[in-house]
Amino acid sequence: MTAWTEPSVDDPFGVHNLPLCATRDGWVGVRIGDLILNLGAAEEGGLVDAGGAFTRASTLNRFLAAGRPTWTRVRAQLTDLFTGPRLAGKAELLHPVDGTALALPFEVADYVDFYSSEHHANNLSRLFRPDSPSLLPNWKELPVGYHGRAGTVVVSGTDIPRPHGQRKAPDEERPGYGPSRRLDIEAELGFVVGTPSSGPIDVDDFREHVFGAVLVNDWSARDIQAWEYQPLGPFLGKSFATSISPWVVPLDALEPARTEAPVQHPPVLDYLREAERYTYIIRFEVFWNGTLVAQPPYEGVYWTPAQQLAHLTANGAWARTGDLYASGTISGPTPEQTGSFIERTWNGAQPVRLDDGTTRSFLLDGDTVTISATARGPGGPADAAMIGFGEVRGTVVTRV
Amino acid sequence: MTAWTEPSVDDPFGVHNLPLCATRDGWVGVRIGDLILNLGAAEEGGLVDAGGAFTRASTLNRFLAAGRPTWTRVRAQLTDLFTGPRLAGKAELLHPVDGTALALPFEVADYVDFYSSEHHANNLSRLFRPDSPSLLPNWKELPVGYHGRAGTVVVSGTDIPRPHGQRKAPDEERPGYGPSRRLDIEAELGFVVGTPSSGPIDVDDFREHVFGAVLVNDWSARDIQAWEYQPLGPFLGKSFATSISPWVVPLDALEPARTEAPVQHPPVLDYLREAERYTYIIRFEVFWNGTLVAQPPYEGVYWTPAQQLAHLTANGAWARTGDLYASGTISGPTPEQTGSFIERTWNGAQPVRLDDGTTRSFLLDGDTVTISATARGPGGPADAAMIGFGEVRGTVVTRV
Repeated sequence: MTAWTEPSVDDPFGVHNLPLCATRDGWVGVRIGDLILNLGAAEEGGLVDAGGAFTRASTLNRFLAAGRPTWTRVRAQLTDLFTGPRLAGKAELLHPVDGTALALPFEVADYVDFYSSEHHANNLSRLFRPDSPSLLPNWKELPVGYHGRAGTVVVSGTDIPRPHGQRKAPDEERPGYGPSRRLDIEAELGFVVGTPSSGPIDVDDFREHVFGAVLVNDWSARDIQAWEYQPLGPFLGKSFATSISPWVVPLDALEPARTEAPVQHPPVLDYLREAERYTYIIRFEVFWNGTLVAQPPYEGVYWTPAQQLAHLTANGAWARTGDLYASGTISGPTPEQTGSFIERTWNGAQPVRLDDGTTRSFLLDGDTVTISATARGPGGPADAAMIGFGEVRGTVVTRV
Repeated sequence: MTAWTEPSVDDPFGVHNLPLCATRDGWVGVRIGDLILNLGAAEEGGLVDAGGAFTRASTLNRFLAAGRPTWTRVRAQLTDLFTGPRLAGKAELLHPVDGTALALPFEVADYVDFYSSEHHANNLSRLFRPDSPSLLPNWKELPVGYHGRAGTVVVSGTDIPRPHGQRKAPDEERPGYGPSRRLDIEAELGFVVGTPSSGPIDVDDFREHVFGAVLVNDWSARDIQAWEYQPLGPFLGKSFATSISPWVVPLDALEPARTEAPVQHPPVLDYLREAERYTYIIRFEVFWNGTLVAQPPYEGVYWTPAQQLAHLTANGAWARTGDLYASGTISGPTPEQTGSFIERTWNGAQPVRLDDGTTRSFLLDGDTVTISATARGPGGPADAAMIGFGEVRGTVVTRV
């Protein structure tokens, strides 16, 4: 008998989750409890059949490209495998999570970052553009977003050298170049496209194209961003690094976490109107050097991932396997629910106190940020299982 | 004897050029006159040695990644090959340009678009932000840019379905969704990164990392762009398609076209200061349904490609093989030198007359835009050879 044969309601990586990963040893796997099943070896051994998508795969891209019918079939196979006897005596296929070095789970094609939390957009407007209306006229008509740098998406655990760049204080005549003085985070949920498209994706076809979700920390140098972003948007203030969690949680695992998405007013244009409008209840936790500093709630985000995908392809752009698009910073209405430190500390005016007695406004070299999240899993209100996303973690280091 | 054994000063694809390409048949080649040498077959036949980078290659990426010493060695080999006897009897390795279907020459990693022509930035400012100063305070301090969509970069000849999207006229209360009514072009020069980096690239190391250049048409839906771009920059107004020429012209071929780049005032910060500041004399021609409507001069662009690459990695971002970054729209001081139609027609107020007697402000379905360019090649002022970039061409079609 093995631990996963009786999934515990307390295990966020029980059989109802089954997130996928890639390892630095060059194989892909699925997590069950504290173990990872080598899916390449399992497929070669006839225990799972993804049409060869796992065999000798070093990333999830081939499996992502295989599409929804394969995803559904393989999920059923894995559920059978982990609840039946066929893994008995196959210990060599299972590796402890601790001690397995994880890699970027997929090759990122294009990376898009949205700006879809109303509380976040209001807060940033007030901080960056105090003289303007807090929401720009387009914000409730379309999910505002931009393309980020796909090549600097890194896996959780990768150190983050402090970015350098141009920044200019309002009282300075000219900008200077040097280390960012206002390094920040953004806690987000990222969606991973599997099935490509040849053009627009209908808002109701979201689940046909998106395999699953990851946690995202969109590291942000606020001083670089503030100086550079007019008129073409964020560039070097963001492009030095974006961290994602190593586990891709399947949308199928999030079904029990479905809930109604926020009501939208004014009513959206037809191409953004969903036959069934829903989002997911996912609770984030942000730790600064181990101190819990914020708990952003994903379900309050104004634009759903289905609307974001429909919008991002509405002009005719096609989607590719490995496209990653992120929710934008997730912030709730209170300071303790904000997904960035510029909001949490109100631009440094209200520093947070960490458990070691020190205070912080922005990140110092040596600081570690860990973002984790859980969604509700199957079961009744009193005994629901949990779905874990694991964590996305990074330590700021001095650039050499 | 073959045509290329005596390079003609009149041939923009003589032995002094040697641009590379990839074909839809899955091999890479080099152009000489009106022929393409199959480099994969040539390497397998021992006529050229790129360390295997051409052998069974369907894109240039492996050759790009091989780096400057390989680029220099292979260029010398090709020069010998085309000026000596070793191709005699090897006609099967040579394919006519007409009749060879060309593909995207390399897999695009990240795509960055700059905004580095002062005339263009001034013009767009006046058109988009009539109430603001024409150049924003950051414009002369750093090369303003943003990330575009790498996945929708297409090769010359690809049809461009008219993008749809949200657009709102100033007198409309709400936006509508539909075909862009203000579809435009941007004539640009794109630079192709070969040698990757692990972080910042020094402004003087440009030639160590960049292999060559392509023509870029950054198709732009001005109405979609105007409504969406605040505050995060261009997104769907650009991401439906970006066309590039099939020929990657080596920087080595552009050496005779070197010239001093525009004087910069105020003096730039140290990381943007070049030991030797230069750009290239490259003359663009923009044809609208065959009518020459503009001749933008590249050499007037304020920020050089060396500065753009240094800036884009200055924060610590690394460069990958296949990264493409474009100059931004190239515009000179007169309407006949502007690289976009919104400038050429001053937002439609001054339509251009085509040779067939019709007039245009923005693109109509069925319109074809062809952008070509030439640089000065070796030789004295009176008998200089020409270096051809070929063309980037696209026809706007109705979206089905």
